[in-house]
Amino acid sequence: MQISEALERLHAFDETRYAVYHAMSILYVDGDTAAPKESWRGRSRTMGYLSGLAYEAVSDPRLQEAVSTVLQADGTVSARDRRIAELFHEDMEDMLLFSREEYVQNQHLLTQANTVWHEAKEKSDYALFAPYLEKLIAYQRRFAALKDPHKDPYDVLLDTYEKGMCVSDLDPFFALLREELTPLIQTIASLPAPRTDFLHRSYPLHLQRAFSDRLMAMMGIDRDRCNIGETEHPFTDGTNKWDVRITTHYREDDPASSMYSVIHEGGHALYELGVDDDLQFTRLSGGSSMGIHESQSRFYENLIGRSLAFSKAVFPAAKELFPEQLSDVTLEAWYRGINRATPSLIRTEADELTYPMHILIRYEMEKRMIAGDVKVDDLPAMWNDMYRTYLGVTPTCDREGILQDSHWSGASIGYFPSYALGSAYGVQMLANMEKDVDVWGAAEKGDLRPVTAWLRERIHRYGQSLTSAELLLSAGVAPFDPRCYVDYLKQKFSALYGLSS
Amino acid sequence: MQISEALERLHAFDETRYAVYHAMSILYVDGDTAAPKESWRGRSRTMGYLSGLAYEAVSDPRLQEAVSTVLQADGTVSARDRRIAELFHEDMEDMLLFSREEYVQNQHLLTQANTVWHEAKEKSDYALFAPYLEKLIAYQRRFAALKDPHKDPYDVLLDTYEKGMCVSDLDPFFALLREELTPLIQTIASLPAPRTDFLHRSYPLHLQRAFSDRLMAMMGIDRDRCNIGETEHPFTDGTNKWDVRITTHYREDDPASSMYSVIHEGGHALYELGVDDDLQFTRLSGGSSMGIHESQSRFYENLIGRSLAFSKAVFPAAKELFPEQLSDVTLEAWYRGINRATPSLIRTEADELTYPMHILIRYEMEKRMIAGDVKVDDLPAMWNDMYRTYLGVTPTCDREGILQDSHWSGASIGYFPSYALGSAYGVQMLANMEKDVDVWGAAEKGDLRPVTAWLRERIHRYGQSLTSAELLLSAGVAPFDPRCYVDYLKQKFSALYGLSS
Repeated sequence: MQISEALERLHAFDETRYAVYHAMSILYVDGDTAAPKESWRGRSRTMGYLSGLAYEAVSDPRLQEAVSTVLQADGTVSARDRRIAELFHEDMEDMLLFSREEYVQNQHLLTQANTVWHEAKEKSDYALFAPYLEKLIAYQRRFAALKDPHKDPYDVLLDTYEKGMCVSDLDPFFALLREELTPLIQTIASLPAPRTDFLHRSYPLHLQRAFSDRLMAMMGIDRDRCNIGETEHPFTDGTNKWDVRITTHYREDDPASSMYSVIHEGGHALYELGVDDDLQFTRLSGGSSMGIHESQSRFYENLIGRSLAFSKAVFPAAKELFPEQLSDVTLEAWYRGINRATPSLIRTEADELTYPMHILIRYEMEKRMIAGDVKVDDLPAMWNDMYRTYLGVTPTCDREGILQDSHWSGASIGYFPSYALGSAYGVQMLANMEKDVDVWGAAEKGDLRPVTAWLRERIHRYGQSLTSAELLLSAGVAPFDPRCYVDYLKQKFSALYGLSS
Repeated sequence: MQISEALERLHAFDETRYAVYHAMSILYVDGDTAAPKESWRGRSRTMGYLSGLAYEAVSDPRLQEAVSTVLQADGTVSARDRRIAELFHEDMEDMLLFSREEYVQNQHLLTQANTVWHEAKEKSDYALFAPYLEKLIAYQRRFAALKDPHKDPYDVLLDTYEKGMCVSDLDPFFALLREELTPLIQTIASLPAPRTDFLHRSYPLHLQRAFSDRLMAMMGIDRDRCNIGETEHPFTDGTNKWDVRITTHYREDDPASSMYSVIHEGGHALYELGVDDDLQFTRLSGGSSMGIHESQSRFYENLIGRSLAFSKAVFPAAKELFPEQLSDVTLEAWYRGINRATPSLIRTEADELTYPMHILIRYEMEKRMIAGDVKVDDLPAMWNDMYRTYLGVTPTCDREGILQDSHWSGASIGYFPSYALGSAYGVQMLANMEKDVDVWGAAEKGDLRPVTAWLRERIHRYGQSLTSAELLLSAGVAPFDPRCYVDYLKQKFSALYGLSS
């Protein structure tokens, strides 16, 4: 096959691929936000059909030939086309591990599992979800075995979210976090807690929605290209830079829950919104690895979002919307309140210091789930045990335990460590950013555009045209040093609680 | 081709068709409700791709052979399969009038035109929309010429919304409405108007949303299968009976606007929700002609929704949610207020009596648009002239004039007469229903399930397996007599305004 023909095929496939995944993505987003409960019946069929289309396009021998042709034509094709061919090659390898029937069946399973998880969480009824989780684990174990029978299956899965991430790196990473942070968490638990009563007053939902708008404005999120919806579990979806969606979950007595979801998802959104125009509608659009993606969301959520400087912008805005609820609160009390470090049950609402423990628990569980040495029925007990061990708290029901997160219902096993890695990457990015940008001046003004511009230049704009390792290099996270993360946490929380760090 | 093979192909095509149209439908709904403004860029591509898929499936000679085989196999195939083949035959004939390129181009045009219409309406800037409207008219004129060059092109279009509907029937229909209703409209204009001040107080949107929920509950709409969203122009979309969407538009100073949109769209929704299970995911699912569909929406909106009996259920619910706004209002005042007959500018907010004049205006304009004897640039002036002539009111801007409705932006030219026809059908249905059901008892209780059950049995359940004519027969509207509609309006409004009818 001629290079020109190969490239033509490659780009034609890219267009098909975009359309199919775009449709699936919107069906998913709609399904989770607006669609009525019973709509899964029709969605499952359509998802099955669309995933079949994707499979057929990928199985086309002419596409495979085109990809090989481009990959072998080293030097005569652009770096961009080469990268597209590389990514297609990986996609094809993964997808063709399964037969068309298995692949489509899996799509049906995902649609149903997501629906059932919603119901199970609502009713706090793990038994409803268990049979689906069992199938999802089996599917991922099979995927890992087919992909590389000689490798630890969990390593195979980890690699799909962050290239090169493996148990032998993560074990010491989490060990470090546990060893260094546990004593501090325990010390803080023995100290008087800061006030948080004002974070549990009544905050009407329609005003919380207006608050979300204010936060998104401070982050510089272009609302003509990004909307906000409401879901049980917050997420971000971006099919191109002109169509990004974030979601949040409002609770009347807990405005901080939604506030940090909005800032976290807003960080993901800024990444998607900042990818270069000429990568749009191609395989290179959208964010890179999940580790990099979470580095952005966690950066905004914590390093910026929970800083004193940003509080100086956010707190007055909150006071404007909620004058009565915050009438007896000072900036200092607000800042200490939103940073209260205390072992808790819900990951997405955890403070920065105890957060890594939530990830550690999922990491430990996933290792065993994928090793196959624990029964699905025993998982809730294991979950509760681990929360007791690592955080000293025990869920009173599975809704606030094993059913809290949506990830496993989407077969995303191996994803969670990205949150901890991303949090750690962010600390090194911040240190670099501070050399170039008046980060805290921007945060105080409630105008994060200079922060985003720095990240855009080094990370966002490249979409998937660079690898995770290249992006880390570009943002100065080289070599990656988890100690920086630990030091940051120790320093911040020692200062907050008046301890010598 | 063997019958068995033909049927197999037919059903396989039906599955593809469902999936493609379902995806397109959700992209459209999402685009109009949740999606950010700039998202049309990606949506337009995906819509183009999906419509290309639909076109390819339809152009497949093996499908065409299968359809012919089934149509010729009279007697040996079920009525159901025969009906499916008939409808496919019609779809194919329509679609294949155009080349694939033209067909896909038209999809792009529709996505863009809808986006531009939103912007044009927002800015009240007809010039933005005019070039798109010109293309849409040209497209529909071309469709009509290709489909039947010997027929009046507007008749060709009318036929696509209500089989057999044509100018030679509609001219006398609208003449009757104009002649009979105009004197009454004028008489009423000279009488003292009932109070409507309380309908223009401040009704917070979050409470209006709760009011919508109450109304949907009274209508017996299953919320697990039907959600409500917000759009510039209210609509209903149903891809199957487990996934129906209605939308409304809230205005703080005009709760009746949304209230009647919800009841109107709720009527459409009940139709889609009531189609038999075994028709789902086939060409026979969903409502039949637009005339029948509008008969359902207008039935609930007006015959029930604006009745004194239903007011006895709705008014107390409104008072519960809006005690201050309605503190000085009696049931009688509410009933007279929501039925105030007065020439106005916005069709969707018009009272029952002046409403047909809005349709008449669009009918007269469409005839001339499709005849090609009026320039697109002259349409706003023509619109304003007609409103002066038929209703004695003049829009102050195109936003409250020619840009108000979304239909033309979706190339739906020939649709509007369905509203008037549907309204007229409903009156005869009601007369029949009253023989079997305690309609007003149900309305007073705010539980419309008995009403819906009657309609389901005679209309809803059949989906598209019966023709419009068959459904009218089933509901007792035979022969169709527009006089019943005129008499109903004259009687109701004479009574309301204390005139002898």
